[in-house]
Amino acid sequence: MKRKPIVHHIPVCPFCQRLEILLSLRGMADAVEFRVIDITRPRDPGLLLKTRGTTALPVLETSDGRIIKESLVILRYLDEFLPGATLRRDDPYEHAIESMLIAREGPFAEAGYLFVMNQDRDRRAEHQEKLLGLYRDINDFLLEHGHQGPYLFEDFGLAEAVFTPLFKRFWFLDYYEGFRLPESQDYARAKTWKEACMAHPATAQVCREEIVKLYYDYALGAGNGAIVPGRQVSSFTFDPPWQTRPWPPKDKYAGTATDRELGLTS
Amino acid sequence: MKRKPIVHHIPVCPFCQRLEILLSLRGMADAVEFRVIDITRPRDPGLLLKTRGTTALPVLETSDGRIIKESLVILRYLDEFLPGATLRRDDPYEHAIESMLIAREGPFAEAGYLFVMNQDRDRRAEHQEKLLGLYRDINDFLLEHGHQGPYLFEDFGLAEAVFTPLFKRFWFLDYYEGFRLPESQDYARAKTWKEACMAHPATAQVCREEIVKLYYDYALGAGNGAIVPGRQVSSFTFDPPWQTRPWPPKDKYAGTATDRELGLTS
Repeated sequence: MKRKPIVHHIPVCPFCQRLEILLSLRGMADAVEFRVIDITRPRDPGLLLKTRGTTALPVLETSDGRIIKESLVILRYLDEFLPGATLRRDDPYEHAIESMLIAREGPFAEAGYLFVMNQDRDRRAEHQEKLLGLYRDINDFLLEHGHQGPYLFEDFGLAEAVFTPLFKRFWFLDYYEGFRLPESQDYARAKTWKEACMAHPATAQVCREEIVKLYYDYALGAGNGAIVPGRQVSSFTFDPPWQTRPWPPKDKYAGTATDRELGLTS
Repeated sequence: MKRKPIVHHIPVCPFCQRLEILLSLRGMADAVEFRVIDITRPRDPGLLLKTRGTTALPVLETSDGRIIKESLVILRYLDEFLPGATLRRDDPYEHAIESMLIAREGPFAEAGYLFVMNQDRDRRAEHQEKLLGLYRDINDFLLEHGHQGPYLFEDFGLAEAVFTPLFKRFWFLDYYEGFRLPESQDYARAKTWKEACMAHPATAQVCREEIVKLYYDYALGAGNGAIVPGRQVSSFTFDPPWQTRPWPPKDKYAGTATDRELGLTS
């Protein structure tokens, strides 16, 4: 038997979670082997050779050892490659609609990550407004093109698989920035969508507590497993596991808690 | 009979030329009606209403009046919508490969446009190096995934339709910045690809003289039909047509030539 495709990934990475959601929805959670990469350690040289030096994840390795990169490319590849009905809409126009919404994910992800990583208290409002503007744009898009609700079309689909992992990551904004969508018609349709996406059973791979604890270092401006000055252990470490650690302090602008306070030393 | 889909476009826009190339390759140049937008004049309010305020082009209007935006979304839509064999690769893995290459078009276009619009002589080297780095990356990609040559696969395909209009726009770098790909193995495969793309008969919608003359204002830092200080007519004007005008001065850092010198006044 041919071996399964392998996805090299970080367990909490939103760009990997998309693939897990797809597999779950397609009822094929076992069709792909997931191999966990610890981003707090140097990358395996064998994998680096295969990816020709790229460290960006996820990376898919096909049954015969060929490499596919880019989260959205892998997502669409798996959707086509797996047997059975695709998650993408069959109709070309409807697929164009979901693709137009998906085209918004890059700026949306960037705005959320820049906001959580921002270290300048005076620039909070600016980051918040940027993200709110993107939510308003999504709201308008759904009003123009979407079904009555909650999803873009009648069911959770490709666009939902793309955005839900970001909505769940943005728990870090909720916790570290007190970010909420305002109660206003400008956000009502986007909010309905977001809540339905996050509540869908195929998207339960991560939980709020995990995201808040693991992304603490992002809230201090240190991405991708980088070590925060004054600390020795990354909040992304697998050991000790997040379940055993206390909740981090909410005030990201007050400077880092110690490794000990964060439960990072055993 | 149902009316044809309409593409609202600017004749020299690279993001519209992709669609023309697709139609030409599919042998269906008549399947879509192209309507020309003059970006030097205020946008038609009727069209603005349809696009809900977006001025970005191209925009496709389906037979029943629905709107699709985003050059790559429209391109893939037309490829699926038109009868007959698609330009995209059928095989999911091969399609993933062409999609990985297409994912590079955004940064590539941005680097070329920022370079031509740069007004600071001291930053030329930086812009040049940025673009060369992207060409080296494309070179590596084609060596890793591409056929012997000249194209990514055996024929001119979807990735070629995406990149060729940019290669042709970059005539403006050739002219205004003296930009050339170095004679080196680091660029050899990319160069072969680029030259084959540009020579393909399905890509002859624009010529070098047209690009160089129309994009003169970009070389002076003024994009999207904006008027350069000290001038009254945009180099993008349809009247007088570019064919009747002299070649613009090559030295973009010396300040603008006059409307008269550029043949923009009749």
